[in-house]
Amino acid sequence: MPDRTIHFQPLGRKIETKKGKTLLQLATLAGLTIESICGSEGKCGKCRVIVQSGSANVSPLNSNEEKILDKKERASGTRLACQAHVVRDGPIVVEVPQESQRGHQRLLAAGTERRVRLEPAVRKTLLKVPPATLKDLRADDDRLLQLAEKKTKVKMTIAPGVHNLLPAALRDKAWITTVTTFRGEEIIKIESGDTTDDVLGVAVDIGTTKVVAYLVDLRSGMVLDTETMANPQIPFGEDVIARISYCNRKKDGLAELQKAIAIGVDGLIWKLCAAARREPSDVLEVMVVGNTAMHHLFFGIPAKHLAEAPYAPVVRKSLVVRPGQVGLSTYPHGKVSSLPNIAGFVGADAVADLIASGLFEDDDLGMMIDIGTNTEIVAGNKKRLVSCSCASGPAFEGAHIKFGMRAASGSIERVWIDPDTGEIVVRTVDDAPPRGICGSGIVDALSEMLAHGIIDQAGRLAPRAHPGVRKDRQGMAEFVLVQGGSKSAGGEITITQHDIQEIQLAKAAIFTGVTTLMRKLGIEAGDLSTVYAAGAFGTYVDASSAIRIGMYPDVPVDRIKFIGNAAGSGARMCLRSTRMRDVADELSHRVEYVELAAEKDFQREFAQAMFLPHRDLSRFPSHGA
Amino acid sequence: MPDRTIHFQPLGRKIETKKGKTLLQLATLAGLTIESICGSEGKCGKCRVIVQSGSANVSPLNSNEEKILDKKERASGTRLACQAHVVRDGPIVVEVPQESQRGHQRLLAAGTERRVRLEPAVRKTLLKVPPATLKDLRADDDRLLQLAEKKTKVKMTIAPGVHNLLPAALRDKAWITTVTTFRGEEIIKIESGDTTDDVLGVAVDIGTTKVVAYLVDLRSGMVLDTETMANPQIPFGEDVIARISYCNRKKDGLAELQKAIAIGVDGLIWKLCAAARREPSDVLEVMVVGNTAMHHLFFGIPAKHLAEAPYAPVVRKSLVVRPGQVGLSTYPHGKVSSLPNIAGFVGADAVADLIASGLFEDDDLGMMIDIGTNTEIVAGNKKRLVSCSCASGPAFEGAHIKFGMRAASGSIERVWIDPDTGEIVVRTVDDAPPRGICGSGIVDALSEMLAHGIIDQAGRLAPRAHPGVRKDRQGMAEFVLVQGGSKSAGGEITITQHDIQEIQLAKAAIFTGVTTLMRKLGIEAGDLSTVYAAGAFGTYVDASSAIRIGMYPDVPVDRIKFIGNAAGSGARMCLRSTRMRDVADELSHRVEYVELAAEKDFQREFAQAMFLPHRDLSRFPSHGA
Repeated sequence: MPDRTIHFQPLGRKIETKKGKTLLQLATLAGLTIESICGSEGKCGKCRVIVQSGSANVSPLNSNEEKILDKKERASGTRLACQAHVVRDGPIVVEVPQESQRGHQRLLAAGTERRVRLEPAVRKTLLKVPPATLKDLRADDDRLLQLAEKKTKVKMTIAPGVHNLLPAALRDKAWITTVTTFRGEEIIKIESGDTTDDVLGVAVDIGTTKVVAYLVDLRSGMVLDTETMANPQIPFGEDVIARISYCNRKKDGLAELQKAIAIGVDGLIWKLCAAARREPSDVLEVMVVGNTAMHHLFFGIPAKHLAEAPYAPVVRKSLVVRPGQVGLSTYPHGKVSSLPNIAGFVGADAVADLIASGLFEDDDLGMMIDIGTNTEIVAGNKKRLVSCSCASGPAFEGAHIKFGMRAASGSIERVWIDPDTGEIVVRTVDDAPPRGICGSGIVDALSEMLAHGIIDQAGRLAPRAHPGVRKDRQGMAEFVLVQGGSKSAGGEITITQHDIQEIQLAKAAIFTGVTTLMRKLGIEAGDLSTVYAAGAFGTYVDASSAIRIGMYPDVPVDRIKFIGNAAGSGARMCLRSTRMRDVADELSHRVEYVELAAEKDFQREFAQAMFLPHRDLSRFPSHGA
Repeated sequence: MPDRTIHFQPLGRKIETKKGKTLLQLATLAGLTIESICGSEGKCGKCRVIVQSGSANVSPLNSNEEKILDKKERASGTRLACQAHVVRDGPIVVEVPQESQRGHQRLLAAGTERRVRLEPAVRKTLLKVPPATLKDLRADDDRLLQLAEKKTKVKMTIAPGVHNLLPAALRDKAWITTVTTFRGEEIIKIESGDTTDDVLGVAVDIGTTKVVAYLVDLRSGMVLDTETMANPQIPFGEDVIARISYCNRKKDGLAELQKAIAIGVDGLIWKLCAAARREPSDVLEVMVVGNTAMHHLFFGIPAKHLAEAPYAPVVRKSLVVRPGQVGLSTYPHGKVSSLPNIAGFVGADAVADLIASGLFEDDDLGMMIDIGTNTEIVAGNKKRLVSCSCASGPAFEGAHIKFGMRAASGSIERVWIDPDTGEIVVRTVDDAPPRGICGSGIVDALSEMLAHGIIDQAGRLAPRAHPGVRKDRQGMAEFVLVQGGSKSAGGEITITQHDIQEIQLAKAAIFTGVTTLMRKLGIEAGDLSTVYAAGAFGTYVDASSAIRIGMYPDVPVDRIKFIGNAAGSGARMCLRSTRMRDVADELSHRVEYVELAAEKDFQREFAQAMFLPHRDLSRFPSHGA
C-alpha cells in the first residue's frame, strides 16, 4: 500500500489522509489543536500552516486564502488549515508554526525551529566489502577500515567492543555491510546488509518541571513523535536548590536523583519507540539539554557546588557518554550527548535557546529571555553576547500564589477588564470553568489592574478603585477576579496583595537582569530589534502585559518574537547538525557570563524594578501611552 | 622504618635483606632458584646476577669474582650471587639473567628483557589548581583542563564519567590534584592530593596452556610480582582449534570461554594485588598479549573464522577497551590494551616476541622462533621481516607421547648416552626420580639416539644398535630410556617408534616454516647472525640437540640466543613504553605473513624435513661433524 500519511511538524503527530478533509480537521484528528476563531470560514487567518511536501495532494489556493495570504507566504507554501483540503491520498508534511498552535498546545512541547542542513553526528554508509580469500588475507578490521576510509577520506577507528560484530556483519549478507559512524571518525555499529534507511535519534529537554522528548528520523530530519512528562525528580524537591540540598543531605541522594531522571527519560524513549514500532536499541544518539543542575544530575555529576558561591559548574564543555553510563537502554555503543553549559545557572538549555533563536547570527542587537524558576537572559548580536541568570522563582508556575496553578484545564490564562463597565472577563484553558490562575493570567491581571488604577506603581491595591477590591478576614487587601457561583468551578478566585508582591519580586528579578545586560552592552531597550521570548511561559504570556508591568524591556510589541520551547528546538537542531554543535561549543565559550549578585548596583536596580513598571519611568517611555 | 627490601628482577620476587647473607641465599629465601653447580664456592660462575641499584649495600668484589668476571661484566654491576653478600641493610635491586635461572624457573615466567625508556601510557601529573572564586568563575572542567594543557602543552579531554570525580578531587585537598592521563590526551582519573607515586599496571601473557601476569610499578618500571596459572579454558578444549570448535558448537560458547579467561586473569590480578597490599582498582592499565585465538577469545571477539580458510583474524590492530567490557575489576575508567596481531596464527604474542628479541632493530639477519602447539617464526632484519605459523602440535608438551609429560618435578629434561659404554644418563626436574619425559628430554633423546645410530635418518629404530632397543607386545619397536627399579618413580620409561614419529612431524612442521621464510628472503642458515629461541620450551631445549634433529636451522650454537617467555617480556616492555607500542603497531602492519599451506612447495618441503636432520643434507653442513 502506498504511503498516505500526513505528518504535522515539529510535534511529530501523524494520521492517515482522507480525501476531502481539511488540514485543520486532520490535525484535530491527529490530536493537535490549531488556533481558529472564525469557525473555519477562512477569515481570521489564525490557522496558517505550511505545506512542506506533498502539495500536489492538497487542494489549490482558494479565494479566501488568496485574500489573506501575502505573496511571500504563498511562495513559501503557507495555507489556511481550515481551507486547504486533501484532494489525493498520498504523503503530506505540514508544518504548524508556533503562532498557529493553541496556547496549551504550545506549552506542551513545540518550539520554533530554524532550518539546518541535515548533517547528524550519527551517519550510515553502505559498503560492498571485498571477501576474504587466500589471496587477500587481510584481517576483518583492516578490510573494513581501509574501504571505509577510502570511501570517506576520513581516518576511522572502531569503537571498543564493536569489533565483536565484525565477522557476522561482513559475512551474513554476502559482504554487503552498513557501518554507522559517529562524527565521521568512530565506527559505532556494523550491520549486515543495507540498513541506511534506519537512523534514529532522540532529543530531550530536561526542564526542572517538565521533560520533553522527541523521536527524530535522522535520515529525513523529521520529528516522528513527541512525549512529555513531569520531571520525576519533583518529589525530591520542587526546584533546583531543593534537589541539590537533597543530594547533600542524603548519602546516595545524587544516585537516587540520577536514577529517577534516567528512568524517566528512558520511559519516554520506550514510549516514543513503541508508538513508532521501534526498539530503544534502534536509537543511535540521544541529545540532552537542560539547565546546569538538571544537566549535572542527569549525568550523575555532583551538583553541590552549583548552590554555593561562586556557583561554578563542574562541566561546561559538551559531553558525550555511553547510554550504559547514565542508564538508558538505547543502542549500547551509541551516544548520549549534551550541549555545553555557560555557567552554574546558565545551562545547556540556554545554549539551545540561543541556537534556536538565531540571535548569535543576528547583525542587529537582540535579547533572548527564557522565563522559568530561573530565568536565563542573553543579549547582544553576532559580535558579542552577554548572559545572566535571574532567580525569578516559581510564582509564574503558580507557586506561592493563593489561587495559583499550572496552565491546565480551567486555569485562567487571559484577563481583560472592560474600561467602561469595569467588568472582568477571563478566558481559561479549554474554556473550562475557572479553577485557578496560571502565570500568563496573573501577568494579564496585574497589567489590567495597573491600567485601571486598581493597583498603583508600588503594587498596592487601591481600596476604592474597583468594586472587586476588598479586605480578607486578616485585613489584607485582595481583588476578586472571579466571583463564586455558577460560572466558577470552585468558588471565588482572588488575587491577594501578597500574590501581587510575589509577581513584583519575580518580574523585578527578571528586569534587573535585562537592565544589567543592557548596561553591559551600553544599549537601551529601543536598540533591541528583537526580543526572543522562549520557554512555555514566555511564549504564552501576553507581550503587552509583560511590558506594561515592566517584566520585558519596553520595545514595540511586534519586536517580541515567541520561539516556544526553544530548548527543545535547539536540542533537535543540534541532533540533526554537527555544525550547530560546533556553534554551541563556541557559544558556550564566547558568551560572557555576568554574575548578578556580584554586580555592585544589583540591590538598587532590583529595588527600582519592584515598581510597576519601574521606579525610573524613563526606562518605559511607552508607559501611559 | 627505612626500606630494606631486596628485589629480584624481572620476576618481581622480594624479601627483607639480612646482613651477611649472600644474594644467592636471599634469592633462595625469596623463592627463586639460581643455577649453581660448584656449591657456592665462586668457581662455576653460573650464578651471575646484576646489581641494578643499592650496590653500596653489597660487599665489594672479592678475588673469586675478579677471577671470573670480565671487565665489561664488572662495569655493568655483574656479581656472583654466591659471593656477593649484604653489608648494610638498605634497598637493593638485583637482576637475575635468563642464563642464571634454573630450568624450571625459566619455564615459570621470566623472559629476557631489553631496557626501554620509561614512558608508560598511563601517567600522573600533579596540579596546583587555582581555586574558584567570584572573580574566577570558570567551570571545574575548564579550570582543570586549561591548567593541565598549559603544563603539558597537549590538548586533553576528560573521559566520559570521570567528570563525576572533579568537584571532590579539586576541593578535598585544597585544590592540590593529581590527574592520570592515558597517552597524554585523555584524563582517566582525577584524585585529590598528591598520588603521583602510585602508578600500577599489569602485563598478561595468555598462552593456550599457561597464563602469566606481572604487576609492574609504572613509576620505577619495576616488576613487583609475578603470578601464573593454567589457562582456565583448557577444560573447553586442549588446543586453539578445539576451543574455537566449542564456540561454534555451543550457543553461548564464546561467552563461556571469554568469561573463563577473564575470571582467570582477574584472579591473577587479585592475587598480585593482595600480595602487594593493593586493590585491583589501583591497577590503571592491563596490557594483554596472546596468540590471535587467545586474543579474540579474551576480548569476546568471534574466533570462528580463524579456523576456516583463509584464516582471517577479525582484529589486527591493537585494541584499547574498558575493564568492564571484558570483565576485569581493575580501575573502571582505566584501560585494557592489547598488542596488535599479524595474522590468524601469528598473534600479539609473536609481536611481543619480536619486540623483546629486538630483531626488528637488527642490521644483521636473524630469526625468532617461538615453539608451542603453534610455532611462530619471524625472520629478517630491520629492513624486511617475514613471518609464518607452523602447526607443530602439542608433542613437545608431552601430548601423544607414551611417557610424555609437562616439565614438572621428575620429568626427564636431559638425556646423554655415554659413547663408550652406551650407558644412558638422564637428568630430571628437581632431580626427582624420573616419572616421564618432557619436550626438552625427548629432543635430547632423539639427538643422542641419532648420534649413536640407534635411529636412522628416517627415524627408524635400529634393532641391534643398542641393548635398549626392543619390541613391545604388539611388535612395535621401542627404546628403553629408564629401566624399572629403584631409580625410577614409576617403572620403566620408553620411547616408542610412534613417539619418534610424533617428534618428526612436529620438528618437520617447524623446519618447513624455517625453510620457507629463508627462501622468501633468499638466504641460507649461514646468513643468520642470531636465532632467538623464545617460549618456555624454546628456552629450555638444548640448542645442539635441536639442530642435530633438524628442528632449528644449522647455525653455530653460540648464535642461538634464549629469550625465554619473550611474549611476557614484550608485553611488559609495551606496558612501560608507548614508543614500543607504536613500534608494535608498525610491525604488525609491516611484517609480511606467509600462509604455508598456500605455498606450492609446502608438501615436498615437509616430507623432506621429516628426515633427521633433513633429507637434503646440504641444509645441515654441520651434520656428522
